[in-house]
Amino acid sequence: MSLKKSAQPAPDSTRRSERSRRAIYDAALALVAEVGYPRTTIEGIAARAGVGKQTIYRWWSSKADVLLEAFLDLSEQASRDAGPEYEFAIPDTGDLAADLKAVLRLTVDQLRDPRFEGPSRALAAEGVVDEQLGRIAVAKLLEPSLQMYADRVRSAQEAGQVRPDVDPRIALELWVSPLAQRWLQYTGPISYEYTDTLVDYALYGLAPR
Amino acid sequence: MSLKKSAQPAPDSTRRSERSRRAIYDAALALVAEVGYPRTTIEGIAARAGVGKQTIYRWWSSKADVLLEAFLDLSEQASRDAGPEYEFAIPDTGDLAADLKAVLRLTVDQLRDPRFEGPSRALAAEGVVDEQLGRIAVAKLLEPSLQMYADRVRSAQEAGQVRPDVDPRIALELWVSPLAQRWLQYTGPISYEYTDTLVDYALYGLAPR
Repeated sequence: MSLKKSAQPAPDSTRRSERSRRAIYDAALALVAEVGYPRTTIEGIAARAGVGKQTIYRWWSSKADVLLEAFLDLSEQASRDAGPEYEFAIPDTGDLAADLKAVLRLTVDQLRDPRFEGPSRALAAEGVVDEQLGRIAVAKLLEPSLQMYADRVRSAQEAGQVRPDVDPRIALELWVSPLAQRWLQYTGPISYEYTDTLVDYALYGLAPR
Repeated sequence: MSLKKSAQPAPDSTRRSERSRRAIYDAALALVAEVGYPRTTIEGIAARAGVGKQTIYRWWSSKADVLLEAFLDLSEQASRDAGPEYEFAIPDTGDLAADLKAVLRLTVDQLRDPRFEGPSRALAAEGVVDEQLGRIAVAKLLEPSLQMYADRVRSAQEAGQVRPDVDPRIALELWVSPLAQRWLQYTGPISYEYTDTLVDYALYGLAPR
């Protein structure tokens, strides 16, 4: 499944106004937060956005496509809000713990952002029971930030700050997954102090050194 | 919300046959896996179990109660299958890494058990968007095993194998949460080798020692 129809050229793209696109994204995110993924429809999104449903079908092939693109746009907004240095990579100041803590604090802020919470929960819940949607959502929305962590761990390995035998793709789960589980399953409160602690435990281990 | 009505004595309990109880649990778990939590009803469970819906209402006050008790029963079965030494605590052989790895391998087996997967995903998905249900499900179904991990970390602290300043309730998330996220969100494959690696990273840290 591709996010945009790519088989044909996009003669409408010049007419695709920023205002309509924004209205459709806003409507899609608001609707999925209110009624859940299964009851969100292209018709409902179109009605709420004040556009014809053919306008949506011209640009996207399914409600999953509209929603995933709306989420991508929301994530990009959040990255821009955080500052340009966080848009494509985790800063490398040479202090791995400090860099990870700074990025995780931004994630804590995002998880608490009401624009993000409702629609994100609706999409995440559907991904738990719909494996295809879950895998696509992770690939499009989560994997890019996991790759940024993996890259930062690799540069720390090159700097001798992380053991060379550590798998970066597993290592990053020591701080990403606890935060994700607390958010998804309400297993505990989320705070800067908590994510700072995760980074310290992950880097220096629980056993006495 | 309590799992069983406790305000009144249970005069029916002697007539509550094991066979009906089992049929109701099986029906509840099968139904939630097939149609999801929102469309599971007491009426549907009763019809599938071949009992009157009053039979269910006599013993439980809501579909959440029936489902949570059905899950508790399923978890207890899984614990019994794993062996009596795993029923109430994580074994303490003196080797923390080995003990954690052994229990996590049992969890890997459980996550791959088809009896468990469908209904567990349906309940977990609903818990993501229904905070009250999510919190109750975690308290009833997940928190007891988290407490077992916390207890095992505490005994390792007493044995000098874990730093005394470590918070056991956070420490356990370094192995529990990555496994949970891979299962919930399809962020990666689940295997014994993976959970073994998580334990090693958590105990000994990513930084060179």
